[in-house]
Amino acid sequence: MEDSWEVAGRRFSSRLIVGTGRYKSLEETAASIEASGAEIVTVAVRRVNIADPNAPMLQDFVPPTKYTYLPNTAGCHTAKDAVRTLRLAREAGGWNLVKLEVLGPPPFLYPDMAGTFEAAAALIADNFEVMVYCADDPVAAKRLEEMGCVAIMPLGGPIGSGLGVANPYMIRAIKQQAKVPVLVDAGIGTASDAAFAMELGCDAVLLNSALAHAQDPVGMAVAMKHAVIAGRAAYLAGRMPRNYEANPSSPTSGLIGRAG
Amino acid sequence: MEDSWEVAGRRFSSRLIVGTGRYKSLEETAASIEASGAEIVTVAVRRVNIADPNAPMLQDFVPPTKYTYLPNTAGCHTAKDAVRTLRLAREAGGWNLVKLEVLGPPPFLYPDMAGTFEAAAALIADNFEVMVYCADDPVAAKRLEEMGCVAIMPLGGPIGSGLGVANPYMIRAIKQQAKVPVLVDAGIGTASDAAFAMELGCDAVLLNSALAHAQDPVGMAVAMKHAVIAGRAAYLAGRMPRNYEANPSSPTSGLIGRAG
Amino acid sequence: MEDSWEVAGRRFSSRLIVGTGRYKSLEETAASIEASGAEIVTVAVRRVNIADPNAPMLQDFVPPTKYTYLPNTAGCHTAKDAVRTLRLAREAGGWNLVKLEVLGPPPFLYPDMAGTFEAAAALIADNFEVMVYCADDPVAAKRLEEMGCVAIMPLGGPIGSGLGVANPYMIRAIKQQAKVPVLVDAGIGTASDAAFAMELGCDAVLLNSALAHAQDPVGMAVAMKHAVIAGRAAYLAGRMPRNYEANPSSPTSGLIGRAG
Amino acid sequence: MEDSWEVAGRRFSSRLIVGTGRYKSLEETAASIEASGAEIVTVAVRRVNIADPNAPMLQDFVPPTKYTYLPNTAGCHTAKDAVRTLRLAREAGGWNLVKLEVLGPPPFLYPDMAGTFEAAAALIADNFEVMVYCADDPVAAKRLEEMGCVAIMPLGGPIGSGLGVANPYMIRAIKQQAKVPVLVDAGIGTASDAAFAMELGCDAVLLNSALAHAQDPVGMAVAMKHAVIAGRAAYLAGRMPRNYEANPSSPTSGLIGRAG
Repeated sequence: MEDSWEVAGRRFSSRLIVGTGRYKSLEETAASIEASGAEIVTVAVRRVNIADPNAPMLQDFVPPTKYTYLPNTAGCHTAKDAVRTLRLAREAGGWNLVKLEVLGPPPFLYPDMAGTFEAAAALIADNFEVMVYCADDPVAAKRLEEMGCVAIMPLGGPIGSGLGVANPYMIRAIKQQAKVPVLVDAGIGTASDAAFAMELGCDAVLLNSALAHAQDPVGMAVAMKHAVIAGRAAYLAGRMPRNYEANPSSPTSGLIGRAG
Repeated sequence: MEDSWEVAGRRFSSRLIVGTGRYKSLEETAASIEASGAEIVTVAVRRVNIADPNAPMLQDFVPPTKYTYLPNTAGCHTAKDAVRTLRLAREAGGWNLVKLEVLGPPPFLYPDMAGTFEAAAALIADNFEVMVYCADDPVAAKRLEEMGCVAIMPLGGPIGSGLGVANPYMIRAIKQQAKVPVLVDAGIGTASDAAFAMELGCDAVLLNSALAHAQDPVGMAVAMKHAVIAGRAAYLAGRMPRNYEANPSSPTSGLIGRAG
Repeated sequence: MEDSWEVAGRRFSSRLIVGTGRYKSLEETAASIEASGAEIVTVAVRRVNIADPNAPMLQDFVPPTKYTYLPNTAGCHTAKDAVRTLRLAREAGGWNLVKLEVLGPPPFLYPDMAGTFEAAAALIADNFEVMVYCADDPVAAKRLEEMGCVAIMPLGGPIGSGLGVANPYMIRAIKQQAKVPVLVDAGIGTASDAAFAMELGCDAVLLNSALAHAQDPVGMAVAMKHAVIAGRAAYLAGRMPRNYEANPSSPTSGLIGRAG
Repeated sequence: MEDSWEVAGRRFSSRLIVGTGRYKSLEETAASIEASGAEIVTVAVRRVNIADPNAPMLQDFVPPTKYTYLPNTAGCHTAKDAVRTLRLAREAGGWNLVKLEVLGPPPFLYPDMAGTFEAAAALIADNFEVMVYCADDPVAAKRLEEMGCVAIMPLGGPIGSGLGVANPYMIRAIKQQAKVPVLVDAGIGTASDAAFAMELGCDAVLLNSALAHAQDPVGMAVAMKHAVIAGRAAYLAGRMPRNYEANPSSPTSGLIGRAG
């Protein structure tokens, strides 16, 4: 049987979700998404044209019949803004499955968890299915799940940083206790980062800048497609123990991440 | 055009070379190699039966017509032993392209570089095509190339450790100056390690324990196949710059490896 | 002029704060604290006897005339419990400067930020001076400061883990925006961890298990004393740029943490 | 009893050895060395004036009566050059205890181990006491010790890089098997790097750029003095085990370096 995962009652084979912004053109956007093998694309409702038929629309390049659209609230710094943005998106495209992010102020653009809780509550009450971007905080993550969020999306690293997964212990902690899917969102810079995130046991990875800001976005999309498959397969296969024969009294098995 | 690489005049598509030892059975060996997509397999001449037709032979499970056999000198701790071992292998199977390793004493099993130079000289004089396992030492690497070695194979980490690439700066240094292929050999533990090694620009990765000692060797072989493709594609695509907006005066681009 | 720091109007020379629990005996507690050079000690009100004169009391070994006592709420998992605990402590010893921690459930023992906000508000309203243990979340940290907390104490790593500073980018982000002192609290395992935390610009470091669970707590106290001085001095001195001559086009300056 | 170490029959309290070059002035050199607490200073014979009384001489600022001078062969790329340089130094100042380094070509400036062995043999035959800079290669390190070198000085990272200790496993391996002192030489960038090197069990640390290229060399010298004391004390005290309660089946104790 194929390895697959499910969120909000929908089943997917690809464990890579990609953004639709920051590319040089809509053509490049479409080509990269195609190459990535993603089945879900996330759309910054405030930044991408999905409603004005008099201008080039994302839908013309990335057909919603082929891809599951996941509207997101990039650019929203308050719960109110985030909720309003997703209501407008639902009216425009009927999208009910959404990605919530409420960010703190620049320059850090870290999740504003108080605003996130407030918005999540309002959206769930309004019958949205909320996938939620959040800090790598296992207490907050569990609470968001208990509120009814359908997926937990802790940050790997700061948005747009390409720094990789900063705190693998917390990502793994969040996954260990979760009954809904856990996706690493933000921070992924290159293929080994994506593979590493999957090796922690996550259900999927979401990325955008890693493709859009690569020198060759389509080439990097191919890389990420394979990286996510690789990391998932390695997780399922169960890696060899880490050990160093020179020091048998100091096993290093169980260590997450790299030595040194 | 397909991405491929060449060693000693032979061209390969797969950038993953796998060992043939440490598996539970020859059936598992064969299945793992098949799943890995490898075109070259390395054979510990002293440990695997490749010459006695009265016992199960590797060739019956891993056909030399399908895979390029790369005899190696695992278990040899002197130049003399290594040279003798490869001469016997050449007599047995006609193999001329070989992997030389001369290891220091346990428990560290680090390459004995003096012995390695001595054996490389003798083998090259005897018309072998020598792929050489070595320390992550760019001076030694260059000298081995100038002697006529056809590929340089610096260690990522200690043999059998699964600790990943300890010193990415040196691996990259070795690659930057090399005119022959550079392969990371030893230390790879899981998929993200293999992807990371390829992202450094290496031509290929060699591993054995990472498959044989995984809980599911065949599953890990699939993981590694994709990991190497992913890392290579990411290297070619040119990753996004690392940056952290909170600290624009301190670019982190160029950094190898992970933050923290 | 001496380097010093100030919290809630009190000035200290030592940048090391140590706990008083988990030692084998009160004698060992006292000796370790003495060796550490700490001027502030933190006391788990629920776990250490500071009120019953019929049993050995911490005050008999660690004189409050010599050390600033900082009562903490270790073991409290709700805001209500934390507030009550600190009120009892204030009644017992008159302590107004306190360390608030509200932890989520085992096994993760991560800060419960919602409970932390609730307790901080109640304590500040009740005229406590609150030093607050929190997630490495710059949005939450700023909000706690704006509420009136007198020091922000983000976790370096999980409590009792000895894993070091997991996410130096976030610790530095929190420090960059703070107008009150920032202390790394939890996760420090050995001297280099403490030095590293101080090199990020933090005002002080708090630790407990690193001393109490070392093989020689007094020896480790000496180590930590010097480590904090070293890290502070290095931060003030301004470290050399990271660079690797082999790759002049890829400066690694600005990178936090170690290579590889 | 004081903690001290011995090389070639001489006993020292300070475990920090510092260079004398790359400073802005000889005054700054002297002030930094004084602040560092070093008892041994290493002198690049080819770069620092130690013989011409008509120009400012190092000895006028850093008195050889107070500090043990350790002439080194910086700038020598062949065994012959290194041997000649140290013979000239011995004639000039009577120095018999020396630091040998034979470097490969730019840009990597990695130790040329073949040249190092050749020079070490010649120097030992000529009654020098040779402290030897080398690769982090335990086989070569053992052989240098067996030849008669009085101290082994593996590189932490590339010379002048400030990248820290790249491969702690190999440094520890070298130390574990050595009967002569092991010093980490090169790569140290800041205080936590020096503490970390000492936590691996090394006998001492040698650095130069970390002071000379800091914004405030004297301040950094103070930092390094404390860092080395801290790392040594932590090593002797025996650090707490690394562990993460969330994952009791995966102990991380024994891991060298930081998580993630």
